[in-house]
Amino acid sequence: MKHDYDTHRAQASAIFRAWGMPAEKAAISAEILAWADLHGLESHGIALLVEYNERRQNRPINFASVPRIVRETPISALMDGDGGLGHHPADQAMRLAIGKAKAAGVGIVSVRNSGHFGALGYYTTMAADAGLIGICTTSVFGVRVSPTGGAEARFGTDPWSFAAPAEPGRPFVLDMATTTVASGKVRNKIVEGQQMPDDWGMDADGIPTRDPNKVMQGGFLAPLGGSAGYKGYGLAAMVNILSSCLSGSTLITDPMHSRQSWGLDVGHFFMALDPGLFRDTEDFRNDVARFCDDLRATPAVVPDRPVMVAGDPERKVAAQRRSGIPIGPGLHKRLHAIAADSGAEWLLQTVDSLQPTAHG
Amino acid sequence: MKHDYDTHRAQASAIFRAWGMPAEKAAISAEILAWADLHGLESHGIALLVEYNERRQNRPINFASVPRIVRETPISALMDGDGGLGHHPADQAMRLAIGKAKAAGVGIVSVRNSGHFGALGYYTTMAADAGLIGICTTSVFGVRVSPTGGAEARFGTDPWSFAAPAEPGRPFVLDMATTTVASGKVRNKIVEGQQMPDDWGMDADGIPTRDPNKVMQGGFLAPLGGSAGYKGYGLAAMVNILSSCLSGSTLITDPMHSRQSWGLDVGHFFMALDPGLFRDTEDFRNDVARFCDDLRATPAVVPDRPVMVAGDPERKVAAQRRSGIPIGPGLHKRLHAIAADSGAEWLLQTVDSLQPTAHG
Repeated sequence: MKHDYDTHRAQASAIFRAWGMPAEKAAISAEILAWADLHGLESHGIALLVEYNERRQNRPINFASVPRIVRETPISALMDGDGGLGHHPADQAMRLAIGKAKAAGVGIVSVRNSGHFGALGYYTTMAADAGLIGICTTSVFGVRVSPTGGAEARFGTDPWSFAAPAEPGRPFVLDMATTTVASGKVRNKIVEGQQMPDDWGMDADGIPTRDPNKVMQGGFLAPLGGSAGYKGYGLAAMVNILSSCLSGSTLITDPMHSRQSWGLDVGHFFMALDPGLFRDTEDFRNDVARFCDDLRATPAVVPDRPVMVAGDPERKVAAQRRSGIPIGPGLHKRLHAIAADSGAEWLLQTVDSLQPTAHG
Repeated sequence: MKHDYDTHRAQASAIFRAWGMPAEKAAISAEILAWADLHGLESHGIALLVEYNERRQNRPINFASVPRIVRETPISALMDGDGGLGHHPADQAMRLAIGKAKAAGVGIVSVRNSGHFGALGYYTTMAADAGLIGICTTSVFGVRVSPTGGAEARFGTDPWSFAAPAEPGRPFVLDMATTTVASGKVRNKIVEGQQMPDDWGMDADGIPTRDPNKVMQGGFLAPLGGSAGYKGYGLAAMVNILSSCLSGSTLITDPMHSRQSWGLDVGHFFMALDPGLFRDTEDFRNDVARFCDDLRATPAVVPDRPVMVAGDPERKVAAQRRSGIPIGPGLHKRLHAIAADSGAEWLLQTVDSLQPTAHG
């Protein structure tokens, strides 16, 4: 079943408000989830409400958080997320970075004591839409990846995002975890009864395996580049340095990381950079657009699957979903239960109960 | 046969001078090659003289180049490398970035019209040694990697480096190409008569293959994460955006890229960031050191192969090579011929001709 963007966003907003989030914050948090679903990033869309709902049962999340600036210069700021979810402080942080980059050429904002903030590409796209280069990293909550040569998980899927303005409406937007694949892809192999390619994961002893069951039963996801490489591991470590060490958030390797009494204490890093510091901004933009077009023009291995550039696959899905964002029956049911439990208005009506409307 | 650091550096410097490079520039360029060999990064050491010697036969390299600052702000600069090799302008650029970061919190220097500059880790380590976070990217000259789903090579091994200060003398230093492996590793599989793991390379049609011969005979190296992934490809594209688009260097996808009459026109990106913008620098440094130690303390899959952190493997080699840097007989012979052809003094004497010395 499909729902239009506004309804989708309004539903998430209603649930956030029912959890104690002020209206303005609920609106921006819901917008960021809806943006992810619109762009096909379903693991970072409204499905996150199920995860957030579980977390808030286990430990307090400060839905009434008031993020504040702790330290500031014309080119930088340190923000404290006040133990809430991360969407609102992250949106504020990237706006602040963009404003500084517009005024001073660069803006770097570090955020501590924050929480999960959805898809990184949302924030770097904000920078690209403002004509700037955007960079974003965040530390994460779940420990599920072992360092190269290690037999225990020590860090998470630690993602990076980079964006740059190109042809208007078609920015370069890379948003990637530092594991070879997300755990969802390993689960899919189990469902399909298939072996995995090399380099997706390790068993509980840290030995590379092609058996997806061994990865999900006490094993680990492999860092990007596989068990013998060091690249994904190194990129993940740098994410933690930029996100947690720079902001003063709890290290993911700290025994207290997941045992604190309050919030999730993950850290974020946001940077906006004005290409006008170096050359005419239009020349920069045109070069990025030309470079992207040159890549797209590469002869394709499979003729009807043209070469794409980071950001293209998500825009392709978004074009299809402008008429409606699909929500599967399982998720729909869970969201309904969450809304009922928390006393939130129910807006995502099933098709059966929908009355024809002007834009239906 | 082994040679001490000073002799190794003096030999490279003598050859650079014979090629027309002023003494000061030759000294720093040779230092950067010797640093790479000391740290076991042999593909970026004195062996590069063989490659540089071939290139200078095919197209002019301006060994007498005078890099200059084209545009400057308190936090940024655009430099022009004047069509020479990249080591000298790169060293100047990172020094400039570090000075700006010390004064203003951040320094970002973009370099255009430059050339090959050796190992990126040399430059980011400069930042880390100054107590700063260092970031470096460079575009490259050789086209050998296809974009995901593409059947033609469009870009190169496009590397990233990140460094951060930690325990003194043990900075975090990641220096990585964005391919799964370097082409040398594919060649080694041919020599050993072995198949490659998945995700190392593609044949001439862009189809993933485990046959190393097919990769080297018209095929391509796979971007990090393999033929079906998008991560290495995206990271490589971002390297070109930061290095070439931002500096105004010729795009690697430009038909003129390798056909210009002068220099190599690759671009570099350098950034130094003062953690003191966000928190006490000692606290930052201690957190990075603690995080690295936590990773090193991970139980190892193979008990006598402990988990390492980016920078550790190179420091381990450097400790062994303080007593002498090995140069194989093939390379030794080639360097001798290059020195003879260019009229450079020959310093890397063979063991046979060596007289016992005080420190021999």
